[in-house]
Amino acid sequence: MTAKPSANLRAPYLLMIGDVSRHDFAKTALGLVKWCPDRVAGQLRFDDNPLDLGLPDMSLEQAVQAGIKSLVIGVAPVGGQLSERWQTVLVQAASLGLDIISGLHLRLNDIAGLTQAAEKTGAQLIEIRVPPTDIPIANGKKRSGLRVLMVGTDCAVGKKYTALALTNSFQQRDIKASFRATGQTGIMIAGDGIPVDAVVSDFVAGAAEIISPANDPDHWDIIEGQGSLFNPSYAGVSLGLLHGSQPDFIILCHDATRSGIGSCPGLPLPSVKECIDLNIRCGQLTNPAIRCAGISVNTSALEDKERETYLKQLSEQTGLVCVDSVINGCDAIADQLLAMESSQRDEGHE
Amino acid sequence: MTAKPSANLRAPYLLMIGDVSRHDFAKTALGLVKWCPDRVAGQLRFDDNPLDLGLPDMSLEQAVQAGIKSLVIGVAPVGGQLSERWQTVLVQAASLGLDIISGLHLRLNDIAGLTQAAEKTGAQLIEIRVPPTDIPIANGKKRSGLRVLMVGTDCAVGKKYTALALTNSFQQRDIKASFRATGQTGIMIAGDGIPVDAVVSDFVAGAAEIISPANDPDHWDIIEGQGSLFNPSYAGVSLGLLHGSQPDFIILCHDATRSGIGSCPGLPLPSVKECIDLNIRCGQLTNPAIRCAGISVNTSALEDKERETYLKQLSEQTGLVCVDSVINGCDAIADQLLAMESSQRDEGHE
Repeated sequence: MTAKPSANLRAPYLLMIGDVSRHDFAKTALGLVKWCPDRVAGQLRFDDNPLDLGLPDMSLEQAVQAGIKSLVIGVAPVGGQLSERWQTVLVQAASLGLDIISGLHLRLNDIAGLTQAAEKTGAQLIEIRVPPTDIPIANGKKRSGLRVLMVGTDCAVGKKYTALALTNSFQQRDIKASFRATGQTGIMIAGDGIPVDAVVSDFVAGAAEIISPANDPDHWDIIEGQGSLFNPSYAGVSLGLLHGSQPDFIILCHDATRSGIGSCPGLPLPSVKECIDLNIRCGQLTNPAIRCAGISVNTSALEDKERETYLKQLSEQTGLVCVDSVINGCDAIADQLLAMESSQRDEGHE
Repeated sequence: MTAKPSANLRAPYLLMIGDVSRHDFAKTALGLVKWCPDRVAGQLRFDDNPLDLGLPDMSLEQAVQAGIKSLVIGVAPVGGQLSERWQTVLVQAASLGLDIISGLHLRLNDIAGLTQAAEKTGAQLIEIRVPPTDIPIANGKKRSGLRVLMVGTDCAVGKKYTALALTNSFQQRDIKASFRATGQTGIMIAGDGIPVDAVVSDFVAGAAEIISPANDPDHWDIIEGQGSLFNPSYAGVSLGLLHGSQPDFIILCHDATRSGIGSCPGLPLPSVKECIDLNIRCGQLTNPAIRCAGISVNTSALEDKERETYLKQLSEQTGLVCVDSVINGCDAIADQLLAMESSQRDEGHE
């Protein structure tokens, strides 16, 4: 039996934000609205919540009637716990047959009555943080299809955003492309994937192999990255993901104004060049043809003029396409990827 | 609260080999006799078993009388299961208050009556494969003390053997040194440690940090390595271990006649030089002063003359001390480490 990425998530989703009104605590719901509008069909708010996701408000009964399959916990509650009111709604939702999708640390089984309610209706209780148990050991074999992996100078430098924007760029041109998720929010957006940082270390590269399986020769997998080879807290995750993804191309993600590694005070961020070099060197183990196709920089702390200068200089230094994905989108990187792939094919390296 | 490596194992051990007579299935017991003679005090064999570990035969009652604290399952049974006779002995041992130490995949809790027997006497049921649950995220901070990490061109190239032989070399000179275990047999030998390949990927470097905690400035931690940066199935584990160990020195372990990576058919072994270079480059992230101090080669497939030539040539090519630890021991590598450390101290790099 072939292992599969995390339980397939059944859309459409009802996004529950309840009484959470702060954007930063409702990031999950907001991300789903932005990145997978086709998968979200309603919002569930408590009476006076001013935060509006722009989706139809629905009661649980209305959601079921509208054909909704899953309730997604769209918030990160303060302190990590859900109030009694929240818990009651979840039990009701499961009683009505809705799957419950959670990316929280708390265990759904610990919510009183939830397991029983789900058992009665066959509703699934899905914890995105829990990886499947039947992941194989990586074998390093070349798979068909094209792969792009986001890598970073650190954590939280826009890898998921860039992968999603790039996937959109490809799909808008009717090019076969799939976003491949390796973290929680990404998995909810894609509807499947594996949270690689939660996988037992021996199986990380194996997880990456099944996240982007063999595909059509002209199909692109755009793979969400994790961590950084230069972040000593998480570099092992990044290396396993790099080897298992066997990318044809990497996109480097960076933050223009960050000076040090977030989780390790005193440790400087690597240079962009150093970071590309080490990823290429390590990535050659499972794909000797690996190349860097562009740089995506978070320049949100720069003024418009500074941004332009910064990106222009970086592009001159590296010879690579440089964008801020949020400001510029990823079309320029998509162009570059297609050009590089096409010239590689012409040279018979395919 | 500071997380601790796996449960401290209580010596002396009674090594149970039961009816297992083949050396290759009793590797665990044989390894313990060789590497921690001070921790083993008896063997438990079934009547007619010709395999002799060279320890006093003991019944469970005799073992308890002799002050033995733990029964170690010293074999890897065919098919991974223990026979009823084995299971009965384990329940009796726990009833007598002996801890049970297992490195097997099977769960001790699944053996009928064992948990109840252990609860009554307070005996611990210890599964070496199960890591502690409170491992911190690595912080990359420099710790006091000296560290040597074994790295390899592949898995199973003698990293544990070399680390143990090197620890002995140090200890015989009355130099403060500890073997730090990162795999199952190593943990039984040392009495503690963490099986890093079983740790969730986000915490591998954190595990390595607590395996070799801050120590006296003249104390050496000799750290068992795992996998290889060049084995795409497990390289993430190796990188996390390298970063968390922040070694001052690495020893490269290699197999003279292996041509390809064991778990990945078709993938060639890296050159010794390439492997040292990448380990140094990656290791500099948490210890800029990292250096390679020697090479330990498994030359068991070579004739004596070939071995000498091979090691001599490798030493000339690399400028490093090269030994076969099994044939030559690790004194030459210990000499080299002490010389390098001393000259580094003189240069004021300490």
